[in-house]
Amino acid sequence: QGCEGDLPVGNDSLKAPAVTIFGYIQPEYDYNFTDAGDNTFKFKRARIGARGLVYKDFSYYFMLEASPFVGSTGDAYLMDAFVSYTKYNWAKVSVGTFKQPFSLDVATPCHSLTTIDRSIVADQLVAPQRDFGLMILGGNNYTKFNYWVAVMNGRGLQVKDDNTKKDVIARATYKLTNYLTVGGSFRYGYPIPNNEEDTRTTYGAEILMQLDKLAIQAEYIYDEGAYFSGASGGCGATPVALGERRDGAYIMASYSVDEKIQPVFKYEFFDPNLDLKDDGSYMERMTIGANYFFNDKVRFQLNYQANIDTVINVDNDALLAQIQIKF
Amino acid sequence: QGCEGDLPVGNDSLKAPAVTIFGYIQPEYDYNFTDAGDNTFKFKRARIGARGLVYKDFSYYFMLEASPFVGSTGDAYLMDAFVSYTKYNWAKVSVGTFKQPFSLDVATPCHSLTTIDRSIVADQLVAPQRDFGLMILGGNNYTKFNYWVAVMNGRGLQVKDDNTKKDVIARATYKLTNYLTVGGSFRYGYPIPNNEEDTRTTYGAEILMQLDKLAIQAEYIYDEGAYFSGASGGCGATPVALGERRDGAYIMASYSVDEKIQPVFKYEFFDPNLDLKDDGSYMERMTIGANYFFNDKVRFQLNYQANIDTVINVDNDALLAQIQIKF
Amino acid sequence: QGCEGDLPVGNDSLKAPAVTIFGYIQPEYDYNFTDAGDNTFKFKRARIGARGLVYKDFSYYFMLEASPFVGSTGDAYLMDAFVSYTKYNWAKVSVGTFKQPFSLDVATPCHSLTTIDRSIVADQLVAPQRDFGLMILGGNNYTKFNYWVAVMNGRGLQVKDDNTKKDVIARATYKLTNYLTVGGSFRYGYPIPNNEEDTRTTYGAEILMQLDKLAIQAEYIYDEGAYFSGASGGCGATPVALGERRDGAYIMASYSVDEKIQPVFKYEFFDPNLDLKDDGSYMERMTIGANYFFNDKVRFQLNYQANIDTVINVDNDALLAQIQIKF
Repeated sequence: QGCEGDLPVGNDSLKAPAVTIFGYIQPEYDYNFTDAGDNTFKFKRARIGARGLVYKDFSYYFMLEASPFVGSTGDAYLMDAFVSYTKYNWAKVSVGTFKQPFSLDVATPCHSLTTIDRSIVADQLVAPQRDFGLMILGGNNYTKFNYWVAVMNGRGLQVKDDNTKKDVIARATYKLTNYLTVGGSFRYGYPIPNNEEDTRTTYGAEILMQLDKLAIQAEYIYDEGAYFSGASGGCGATPVALGERRDGAYIMASYSVDEKIQPVFKYEFFDPNLDLKDDGSYMERMTIGANYFFNDKVRFQLNYQANIDTVINVDNDALLAQIQIKF
Repeated sequence: QGCEGDLPVGNDSLKAPAVTIFGYIQPEYDYNFTDAGDNTFKFKRARIGARGLVYKDFSYYFMLEASPFVGSTGDAYLMDAFVSYTKYNWAKVSVGTFKQPFSLDVATPCHSLTTIDRSIVADQLVAPQRDFGLMILGGNNYTKFNYWVAVMNGRGLQVKDDNTKKDVIARATYKLTNYLTVGGSFRYGYPIPNNEEDTRTTYGAEILMQLDKLAIQAEYIYDEGAYFSGASGGCGATPVALGERRDGAYIMASYSVDEKIQPVFKYEFFDPNLDLKDDGSYMERMTIGANYFFNDKVRFQLNYQANIDTVINVDNDALLAQIQIKF
Repeated sequence: QGCEGDLPVGNDSLKAPAVTIFGYIQPEYDYNFTDAGDNTFKFKRARIGARGLVYKDFSYYFMLEASPFVGSTGDAYLMDAFVSYTKYNWAKVSVGTFKQPFSLDVATPCHSLTTIDRSIVADQLVAPQRDFGLMILGGNNYTKFNYWVAVMNGRGLQVKDDNTKKDVIARATYKLTNYLTVGGSFRYGYPIPNNEEDTRTTYGAEILMQLDKLAIQAEYIYDEGAYFSGASGGCGATPVALGERRDGAYIMASYSVDEKIQPVFKYEFFDPNLDLKDDGSYMERMTIGANYFFNDKVRFQLNYQANIDTVINVDNDALLAQIQIKF
């Protein structure tokens, strides 16, 4: 009498294709130098899901975010969930909710980020980071070329679209050599509710160098046009007010000393309004940190975030410590 | 130190009875001709759960609905969850939350509906479709007779009852021949908060014919008495205002051309107030559609819903496309 | 394109370490003699989670509470989730969310409570019962001594800390003989938002006797100092207003007639304000009940709660019936 019809039978799990349960938790302690009141134990992310292959060509992906600090309420909600048809390597299709295919930083799995936080520019300008839509993608880890093209609502998770126009987001990467991959991203959308005219255009460029134990990764994102101040930032980030034109970039270097220890340095800036100077909105940050891998499932991250103040000098640095376990 | 006592041990999964993880997602694209602003990628449903047998006679069922468009918030919540005692085929018992045993359309598993939407009358009058309660049921797929009798709060999910009286809901079906099954449903309840006097009575009649590749299914539901305007409709439907007496019906025909292709036609009406004529509340709808089964786990549905306007003619048709994958 | 990087492959479940899915549901019927309007089918708890070992020394625990009557909304949310490092039996470490290590009653797994409700004093004074933090613990079921020391936010689940001071909570137990275990608990915290000065101190004493089929368990908790009236009680309990000093205790006796039947009796009191007499806030309750174990996974509980009124006599007893199934 449940929704699913017949009652369970004992040998269900024998004939059913195997469902893979997966997830990870990221308990974290944040110490903010600015406001001493803001030091806390918390979760960065706490995810659990199921995925699997259905016959040869279809697959599913179903993931809940349970961290109380990511969504709009403190409860668990559906984050990524999609059906994929993967018969043709150069024209795979996915339908459902997933990350917008824009920027290497956004595309990096959330449990594989080299620093605890994504770059400010990715969190502020690639928003919504997740959305409803349909994507065509091609290539894989072994091909030089990879591409992603998506048509999406443009409004993010947990809501229906509020205008008739859909957004187009695309990204492509090319492996020039085994050590060097370059890529570009593009988005053209209609961010305003009940508005089919005001558009937003965003460009991104990325480079990834892997030189033995040293990895260097850099991105630049330029964004212009309409934006909706009621939209939320990526992954729980608080969105800042934007001008007509805005940009940002980061460069990050990490070095794998051995299998366990990986120091990392990141410099980044974000300018929410290219037409205003010295209004205090320009942000610069250096992150110094290290990753310690107990094994391939358990990682400890320690990051010092030095926010560089260009106008008024305030004590707003932060020290973040996170332990991650995957299953 | 978790709630569950001892820490996990490695061979837990060996001795534990197998838990079956199951679920499905239904990514959908809706195009509404009425309000062009209302076309969107979304999920119809996104469910995940666990079920299994405990020794021979007990079973459990635990299912979360994660689609942001079904519950009262956009978050995941407990939909069906019940314990069953199934030792005696003619007196099985279930306790927990489950669908009210009323109407074939409501009883059809949500992943096996022939059209994307249930009938309007089932969504409007069999509300709450899910509820807390205790049910006694008998029969199975191989018996001619099946019955369900439930005592339920009458208020739906996520809330405690708000009056002392409980609702009684019952349904019975009888297989006259292999091709023809008839059934009836009944509900007697107290829908108003803090009110132990005003009652609601509902009757349903159903017929199901399966003639080789052709299936014809029809239902009529009549409902009278008190109703609570604050209650929600079935499965995310928006409830309309009801009069003292209301009814509705549908007839649906589908034809399985082969294993993959199944066209479907449905005609339905719903009259929210039998005592008012030409007030514009009467609804008629034709649904023309087709199901395409890629395999037994993946289905594509395309439905055109033609809403027939009897008073003023407005362009309020809709085209719905849904892909469903089960696991 | 999900957050997790590569798409699923078929043999994932073969190489992955086994994830144990576990949980339980507790459908319940409450009949309140006070207010007849308050009788209802409901869930006490409905939990599902995943746990497992990662290599030898790390483990994870991830549990959602899906009962609509426990959290702040009716939706599913993350309850206990932690990473543990268990290499050293006398210095195991856990980070994440878990129950405060205070009181035997609180430490008892929620599916193993001898009565349906915890003691009033534990629900009222050990609040928040669950919290974010870091815990060091030592011992196990086979050692005479066990201890737990935690540093926690002191504010509970789903929120970040709102002051810079952390709470310290500790508990230790010692098995004097095979039949007799004694223990003590301590908490020192800063319960007020944006307040680093007002403190709260709590002491607990516990005793557990297991004499063949008879088990007797008793606790006393004394609590003084600041408290925050906006905080929530344990496990869905409604918090009452507290004075400067408050205490409470319970004694519970149960007798295992055989493997299936276990009658239980509990007497308890709770005084929310030791400095006020006869103001009607003092509570006394007797619980008479029985547990029936169909098997090791399925339990039926029937409890009669007689609330003893010392000032005005009101008819506020309750009869609770619960069926629990574990998986």
